[in-house]
Amino acid sequence: MSIVTTSDSTQDAVARRAVGHSLEGPFYTDREFYALDLAAIFTRQWLFVAVDAEIPWPGDYTTVDIGPYPVIVLRDDEGNPRAFHNVCRHRGARLLEDRSGSVGNLVCGYHKWTYGTDGALRYAPSQPGDFDRGCFGLKAVHVRSVGGLLFVCLADDPPADFGEVAARIEPYLLPHRLRGAKVAARTDLVEDGNWKLVMENNRECYHCDGHPELLRTFFPTYGYAEEDIPAPLRPAHERYLRTDAELRATYERLGLPYALIEELDGRTTGFRIQRDALDLAGESFTPDGTAACRRLLGDLPTPRLGHLALHLHPNSWFHVLGDHAITFSALPLAPDRTLLRTTWLVHPDAEEGVDYDRDTLLKVWTATNEQDARLVARAQRGVSSPAYVPGPYAPTEYQVEAFCSWYIARLREELRLREGLRP
Amino acid sequence: MSIVTTSDSTQDAVARRAVGHSLEGPFYTDREFYALDLAAIFTRQWLFVAVDAEIPWPGDYTTVDIGPYPVIVLRDDEGNPRAFHNVCRHRGARLLEDRSGSVGNLVCGYHKWTYGTDGALRYAPSQPGDFDRGCFGLKAVHVRSVGGLLFVCLADDPPADFGEVAARIEPYLLPHRLRGAKVAARTDLVEDGNWKLVMENNRECYHCDGHPELLRTFFPTYGYAEEDIPAPLRPAHERYLRTDAELRATYERLGLPYALIEELDGRTTGFRIQRDALDLAGESFTPDGTAACRRLLGDLPTPRLGHLALHLHPNSWFHVLGDHAITFSALPLAPDRTLLRTTWLVHPDAEEGVDYDRDTLLKVWTATNEQDARLVARAQRGVSSPAYVPGPYAPTEYQVEAFCSWYIARLREELRLREGLRP
Amino acid sequence: MSIVTTSDSTQDAVARRAVGHSLEGPFYTDREFYALDLAAIFTRQWLFVAVDAEIPWPGDYTTVDIGPYPVIVLRDDEGNPRAFHNVCRHRGARLLEDRSGSVGNLVCGYHKWTYGTDGALRYAPSQPGDFDRGCFGLKAVHVRSVGGLLFVCLADDPPADFGEVAARIEPYLLPHRLRGAKVAARTDLVEDGNWKLVMENNRECYHCDGHPELLRTFFPTYGYAEEDIPAPLRPAHERYLRTDAELRATYERLGLPYALIEELDGRTTGFRIQRDALDLAGESFTPDGTAACRRLLGDLPTPRLGHLALHLHPNSWFHVLGDHAITFSALPLAPDRTLLRTTWLVHPDAEEGVDYDRDTLLKVWTATNEQDARLVARAQRGVSSPAYVPGPYAPTEYQVEAFCSWYIARLREELRLREGLRP
Ligand code: FES
Ligand code: FES
Ligand code: FES
Ligand SMILES: [Fe+3]
Ligand SMILES: [Fe+3]
Ligand SMILES: [Fe+3]
Repeated sequence: MSIVTTSDSTQDAVARRAVGHSLEGPFYTDREFYALDLAAIFTRQWLFVAVDAEIPWPGDYTTVDIGPYPVIVLRDDEGNPRAFHNVCRHRGARLLEDRSGSVGNLVCGYHKWTYGTDGALRYAPSQPGDFDRGCFGLKAVHVRSVGGLLFVCLADDPPADFGEVAARIEPYLLPHRLRGAKVAARTDLVEDGNWKLVMENNRECYHCDGHPELLRTFFPTYGYAEEDIPAPLRPAHERYLRTDAELRATYERLGLPYALIEELDGRTTGFRIQRDALDLAGESFTPDGTAACRRLLGDLPTPRLGHLALHLHPNSWFHVLGDHAITFSALPLAPDRTLLRTTWLVHPDAEEGVDYDRDTLLKVWTATNEQDARLVARAQRGVSSPAYVPGPYAPTEYQVEAFCSWYIARLREELRLREGLRP
Repeated sequence: MSIVTTSDSTQDAVARRAVGHSLEGPFYTDREFYALDLAAIFTRQWLFVAVDAEIPWPGDYTTVDIGPYPVIVLRDDEGNPRAFHNVCRHRGARLLEDRSGSVGNLVCGYHKWTYGTDGALRYAPSQPGDFDRGCFGLKAVHVRSVGGLLFVCLADDPPADFGEVAARIEPYLLPHRLRGAKVAARTDLVEDGNWKLVMENNRECYHCDGHPELLRTFFPTYGYAEEDIPAPLRPAHERYLRTDAELRATYERLGLPYALIEELDGRTTGFRIQRDALDLAGESFTPDGTAACRRLLGDLPTPRLGHLALHLHPNSWFHVLGDHAITFSALPLAPDRTLLRTTWLVHPDAEEGVDYDRDTLLKVWTATNEQDARLVARAQRGVSSPAYVPGPYAPTEYQVEAFCSWYIARLREELRLREGLRP
Repeated sequence: MSIVTTSDSTQDAVARRAVGHSLEGPFYTDREFYALDLAAIFTRQWLFVAVDAEIPWPGDYTTVDIGPYPVIVLRDDEGNPRAFHNVCRHRGARLLEDRSGSVGNLVCGYHKWTYGTDGALRYAPSQPGDFDRGCFGLKAVHVRSVGGLLFVCLADDPPADFGEVAARIEPYLLPHRLRGAKVAARTDLVEDGNWKLVMENNRECYHCDGHPELLRTFFPTYGYAEEDIPAPLRPAHERYLRTDAELRATYERLGLPYALIEELDGRTTGFRIQRDALDLAGESFTPDGTAACRRLLGDLPTPRLGHLALHLHPNSWFHVLGDHAITFSALPLAPDRTLLRTTWLVHPDAEEGVDYDRDTLLKVWTATNEQDARLVARAQRGVSSPAYVPGPYAPTEYQVEAFCSWYIARLREELRLREGLRP
C-alpha cells in the first residue's frame, strides 16, 4: 500500500481546533476528512455492530458494512462469535448478501468456493493438485462479546485498553442477561448527516424539547451537570432525587452496580456508564412509564430499575431497562450519510402479542430516532455552508465537547503516525 | 482559510479563451471551474434572488441557496429587507427550512437559540452568566432593493459599481410599482446544465424557433442587430418599426424611460435594459398579445407598452409588461445543474379567477422555460464530450459573446487576485 | 490539451500486477483507473458498438456513448457506414438524442445547423458572408464493418493489426449474412460493476452453475481446457466429442471455417474465434436445443451448426447460431457501472409470430445477462473492500487471465507513452 498523505489544510484544521466549540465545517463534509475518519477511527477502534442474541446458533450470521469494509459476524460451529471480511478469497465477490441468515458453510455465489464457519477454505472446485487451500481462508476480523454486545475491530492490533473497559462495564450488563435475550425488532435508519453529527446529537439533551415521547419518562434535567440545572427545573430535580434514592436502595438490594463512570476523553476507548432514574412509573420508555414487556430481562424481581445508560466511543449507545434493552450502532456511509442500526431485546421467552405489543415497545425510540434524524439533517445542511463558524457549547453539552476532544485526539495520533511513516 | 489554488490546466483554459467562440468544455463540466465560478462570480457579484413583493410584511422571509450558501432574505421589524446566512451561530444547524414563510423571531429548531429579525441573538437557553449574546448574531449578507427587485451579495465588499447601475435602471422599473405588487406564482425548475449554459441560452434568440408560444408576440427579429437582419425578416422588421414608433410616443407621453442601455461587458456589473415592442396586440405574452391581467401594473393607463427587458450579469433577467412582470433567477446547484426560479407579479388588487386566469398568465413562460431547459440539457450533454471544440458565434449571438467575455474577465480578475496572495 | 498525469500509486499497481491472479481492487473502483481505462483502451481500440443491420438504409442511425464521448453511427447517402462525434460544431449541443432513427440531414435541435450524412455542414442560419462552412463539418470517427458487425475507433491512428484480425474472422461470419439480417430485438442492461468485471465474467464458465437456462445446451465442459476436465464431466465430454465430430463433417461439407483461433494476449487486438458444439438438439439456445427461428441465417441448409463463438478485446462477444445471432457490446458508464447492449439477429424475411416467437428467442440470454449482472454486482461490491486481495485463477479461467494480461499490457503501453511525453 502506498503511504496515505494528508493535505495541509486538513492538518491545519485538526491542529487549530478550539476546545469548547463545535468542529469546523470540513470535518463533516469533506471527503478527505471522511477518509481520515475511516482510517483513524473506524479501522482502529472497537466498534459495536451486533448483539449475541442475533446469532444464537452455530451458522447464524449478520452482515454489516463498516465504511467500505463489508464484514460478516457469525457464530461458529463451536458456538463462538467470529467475524470475517465478507469477501471471497478467489476473485473477491461479496460472500453473504443478506442482512442476516443461517448457513452450514459459507458458499460463494460466484464459483462456489466453500468456507467453514471457522473461515477455513473447505472446497474450491476445479483447482490443480498443488492448490493449497490453507492459504485462502477468510480474512478474520477481531470480535469480542461483552455482556451480550458484539464488538469488532478491523485493526491488526486493536486498542489495548478495551479489555479493561470491557471488564468494567460487563458487571453492569450481566444481570440483564442480554446474551440469551430475544431480538424483538431491528431497524435500519439512514440519516442524512455525518456520523459525528449523529453521535454529537446523542451526547446531549439540550435539544430534548424535540422529543415529546421520550420526554415523558426522561427527567427534564437529563444531561445537565448538577450545578447547571436551571431554576425552572428545580422541582423536577427534587423528584429526581427522591426516585434516585429509592433506586439506589433497589440496586444495593439486587447487587446491581450503579456507580457513574465517565471517561469520555483522555483515553482510547472513551465511555460512560450510569444507572439513572426514569420519571412517572420509572420502569420503561412508555407514555406512563410502565413496562412494555411483562417478562423482565434477567428475571430480575422488579421492572422499576430506571435505565442503564451506556455510551461507547466512537459509534454506540445503549439503554437497558427492566423489561427491555435497546442498542444503537452508528455506521458511516458517506461524509453526509450515516446508518443507524437499532435493536430491541426482550426476555427470551417473551411472546409478541402476549407479553408485549411490538408497536408499544418500538414507539418511543422509533419516534426519537426519526426526530434526531431530522435534527442531524438540519445540522448537516447548515455546517455545509462555508459561512458556518463553530459556536460555543453550553455547559449541558459537556459530553459533546468530550466526544469532539476525544475525536480530535484520535486524529492527531493518526497524523503523528503518518508523519513518522513519511520518508 | 487556506489559500485556494488553481491548477495550471484551469489557468491555461482561462488564458487562451478565443473571443467570438463558445467556451471550452471544462468550463461547463469541471468541478474546479465550478468552484472557481462560485468564488469569482457567485460570492463576489450582486445576485438577484427574490422580489420585495414576496416579503411584504415584517417577519416574512424567503430562503435561497447560493451554491453551498443557504441564505435567508426577510423583512425586519422596521420594514427593511435584510439577508442573513441561514446558519445558526450555535452548532450550525440550518435555521429556516421552508422555501418561504413568516416568523416573529427566528428560532433554531435544534436548541432554540432565538434571533430577532435584525439578526441579533435574543435568547440562548442554559448559557452561563458570562455568555455574550452580542457575539453571536446571525452573519449578515448585503441586500438591496432596486425598484422592487432584491439583490444580495455574499462578498464583504460588494462591487462598487452596482449603485450606479441601480440608479440607472430604477427609473425604468419604478413606474410599474413592482415593490407593492402581488406574487401571482413562483416556480422552481431544475435544469440539467451548467449555470452559464442557462444564461447563454437566454442571451440570444437564434434558437427561438424552439419557442412557438413565445414567438407569437416576439418579433422574429428579436435579438438581431439591425444590420444583421436577414432578408426574409424585413417585412416583420417594418411592422416592428411602426409599432416601435407608436410605443415611443406612448413612453414619452407617460414619462417612461426607454433608451437602450447596453453595457454587458467591460464593467463589473454588466447589464442591458430596453423597452421593446411586442407583436400582435402588443400588450402581453398571450396567444393574441392581449393583456393576461385586467388590472395593470402601476395603474398605468394602457396595457400596450411592449415589454421592458432587463438582463443583469451574472444570473438574472426580467420582462415587465403592462399587465404583469416576470423575474428569472438562475442559481448554480452543481457543475451540471442549475435552479431557475421564476416569479410572476401582478397588480396588488388583481384577483385570480376574476382579473386573471392563472394558467393563461403562466402558460408562455412555463412552456418557454421547459423548452429552454431541454436545449440547455442538450448543450450540457454535448459540451461534456472531450471531442467538443468551441464554435463561432453568429452576429445575432453577440450578447452571448458579451456574456462570455464578461465572465472570462471576472475569472482573470480572480486569478490575478490569487496570484497576488500566493506566498 | 494538458499532459495527463498518473499518480505513483496507480503506476505501482500496474507495475506489480501478479500474473495468474485477479486484479487489485482499485482497478475496478478508482476514478483514476477509470480515466486510464478510457484513455488506454476505449479511446485507442476498435470497439464493437452496432450491427450493419440496425442501419440498413441511407440516413438510418444509431447512437452510442463511449465513456464521455457521444457517437453517431449512420449510413450515408452512398450506403456506407459512417461515424461522427454526436456534437454540434456550433455551440456543442448533442446532435441526435434518440437511441436510433432515420434522418435526411442531421439538424441540430438548438440553432438548426444542418449537416449531410457525410458530416459536411450544409447550412448554418444567419452567418456572415465570410463564414466558411468547410471548416465546420462533424468530427469523424473511424468506422468499419466486419461481416456485418460495426466497429468504431476514437483514436486518430487506430491499431494497425485490426485489418488482419478482420480478414481472419470475416470468413467465419460471412456465410451467416449478418449484414442483411433483421434486428429482432435490442436490449440495454446497466450492470452495477466495472466494465472489466463484465468482460471477465464472460470469459469463463467456472460460474455457469448460475445459468440454468444456458446450461441446457452448453456442454458442461465449456471453457475447460481438455486436460483440466474434471472426472465427473467425462461422460459429457464423450457426448461432446461425438457431436463435435459430426459438426466438423457438416462444416467441411458446407465450407464453413471452424478452426479455433485464440490470440487473446500478446497482440493489440486480442480475439478468439471458434465453432463449438451445443448439447441436446444442438441447434440453438432453447430448452430442447431446437431452432428458435424457422428461417435460417444465410439460408444455410441445416440449423444444426452449434454456435460460432467470437470474443474481441476489449468489449464484445458474439454467438452465431444456425437460426439467429446475438451480439454483446459492453460500454463503461462509470467505474462501477457498465452498459451491456445486446442485439438479436434473424433472417431478413423471418416474421415475428410466424417464424419465431420473440419471447422464446430472447429468453435464454435475457436470463443469462441478468444472472451475470447479479454476479458482476456481487464481485464489484466485494472488490470494493480494502480487505480484498487478488486470488488465484483456476485453469478453467485461463481466458480471464489472458484478458487481464492483455489489459495490463495496454496500460503499460499507455504509461510508457505518457512517460515519453513528460517534459
Ligand atoms: S469469487 Fe468467490 S468463488 Fe470465485
Ligand atoms: S444549532 Fe441552533 S440552537 Fe443549537
Ligand atoms: S449548437 Fe448546434 S446549431 Fe447551435
Ligand atoms: Fe435526540
Ligand atoms: Fe430560449
Ligand atoms: Fe455468465
